[in-house]
Amino acid sequence: MKHIQIIGIGTGNPEHLTIQAINAMNAADVVFLPVKGAGKEELADIRREICQRYITRPAARISEFAVPQRQTAERSYAQSVDAWHGEIAGIYGELIASLPDEGSGAFLVWGDPSLYDSTIRIIERVRRESGLDFDYTVIPGITSIQALAASHRIPINLVGKPIEITTGRRLAQDGLRSDSTIVMLDGEQAFAKIDDPDAEIFWGAYLGTQDEIVRSGRLGDIAADIVTLRAEARQRHGWIMDIYLLRKGRDFEE
Amino acid sequence: MKHIQIIGIGTGNPEHLTIQAINAMNAADVVFLPVKGAGKEELADIRREICQRYITRPAARISEFAVPQRQTAERSYAQSVDAWHGEIAGIYGELIASLPDEGSGAFLVWGDPSLYDSTIRIIERVRRESGLDFDYTVIPGITSIQALAASHRIPINLVGKPIEITTGRRLAQDGLRSDSTIVMLDGEQAFAKIDDPDAEIFWGAYLGTQDEIVRSGRLGDIAADIVTLRAEARQRHGWIMDIYLLRKGRDFEE
Repeated sequence: MKHIQIIGIGTGNPEHLTIQAINAMNAADVVFLPVKGAGKEELADIRREICQRYITRPAARISEFAVPQRQTAERSYAQSVDAWHGEIAGIYGELIASLPDEGSGAFLVWGDPSLYDSTIRIIERVRRESGLDFDYTVIPGITSIQALAASHRIPINLVGKPIEITTGRRLAQDGLRSDSTIVMLDGEQAFAKIDDPDAEIFWGAYLGTQDEIVRSGRLGDIAADIVTLRAEARQRHGWIMDIYLLRKGRDFEE
Repeated sequence: MKHIQIIGIGTGNPEHLTIQAINAMNAADVVFLPVKGAGKEELADIRREICQRYITRPAARISEFAVPQRQTAERSYAQSVDAWHGEIAGIYGELIASLPDEGSGAFLVWGDPSLYDSTIRIIERVRRESGLDFDYTVIPGITSIQALAASHRIPINLVGKPIEITTGRRLAQDGLRSDSTIVMLDGEQAFAKIDDPDAEIFWGAYLGTQDEIVRSGRLGDIAADIVTLRAEARQRHGWIMDIYLLRKGRDFEE
């Protein structure tokens, strides 16, 4: 049977790769590399660098493929994501079909495959919809949450307290609901719109890469600075990936 | 100045180590290994195996130290943790003081230093209370959350939905509050006490090790089985570390 590895590669620092991920890459006949078009060329370069640095098996082949854009017109968020996954599943199906019999392929996933990533979901859809016969394995990777905490040298949770991980869209809608709230996928800088000036923010962009920027402080004091810094960085790079923790309260308060 | 590395080592699979973690271990003059007493000998063995496998620098030294038990009598949870951290900070201070001038030491942390681990907090306390002059760096590691998701081959979040990470103590108190709830540090099997039989549970113990066990299904159908399985495994090993995801709802429901 064909075999697929879904491999978490961390957040852009090639040293985030685990030994398990490196071994999995070297077990693959073909490593599939997404090329995401405008502005994401740097991400493709990091993936290429990771392959170059760690793949030692001479017969391994790298196969680049284009990823379609998500179409949002006249669709709800869920509909647009569902349709987009369907398109990508078609492409993954072709890639998997092109593997030799008993061959193996690897998809390299930014961060970890379990967190706000749909590779697992799409691979399941290929199995359901394509009739292709293959198995797959998931290899964990360092997430941007861990990279953020490491760069700020902080624990994410207060002692014994919960953590919420959410999206910018939902933070804007729900406000802060937890002592520790991690916000991912925030294209609208929701942190600057919530009314909680005494919360602390720990923000980071391009975490793990040479361009990493981090800032922390009282939200009321630095939210506007981060908005400006983020806009400038985004302009300069043509893209941005950022994440932040909002924290209220202190350890050992009951 | 002396330097300390706080290094995440993953959940027991030596292949969870990142290249960054391996390089950091090899930059240390001394690697400090906690020996946690009764039942935790297996964990100390895994740490020793990791050192043996990856430390290639001939001059590196391994220094084992005993970790005190947390005293809970006549104290609130927060008081008991605070006092315990104070004791450990005293021990860490001695270990750091014993390093050569300009020397470097490493603490190996199960999982990731940012998630329900207090090494960062305790190191900050040593800096505050001991008067020792040293700097420190944090290296991220694979958490049991990622190991759980990889073994079950599932994303943790539903599409665009939030995640709560909490403790057994709080789940018992608050019930399920999120579509996806990760429960850590559950010594009381809180999953078996909540009234939500249609939730799905994805459970795992000894994740990443050769003794890994995973189970998943409808909570109402398998909660009792997991309680039994967990008690047997705990008896057999003398200890257990487990984690689970409780999930309600489906992708693309709005």
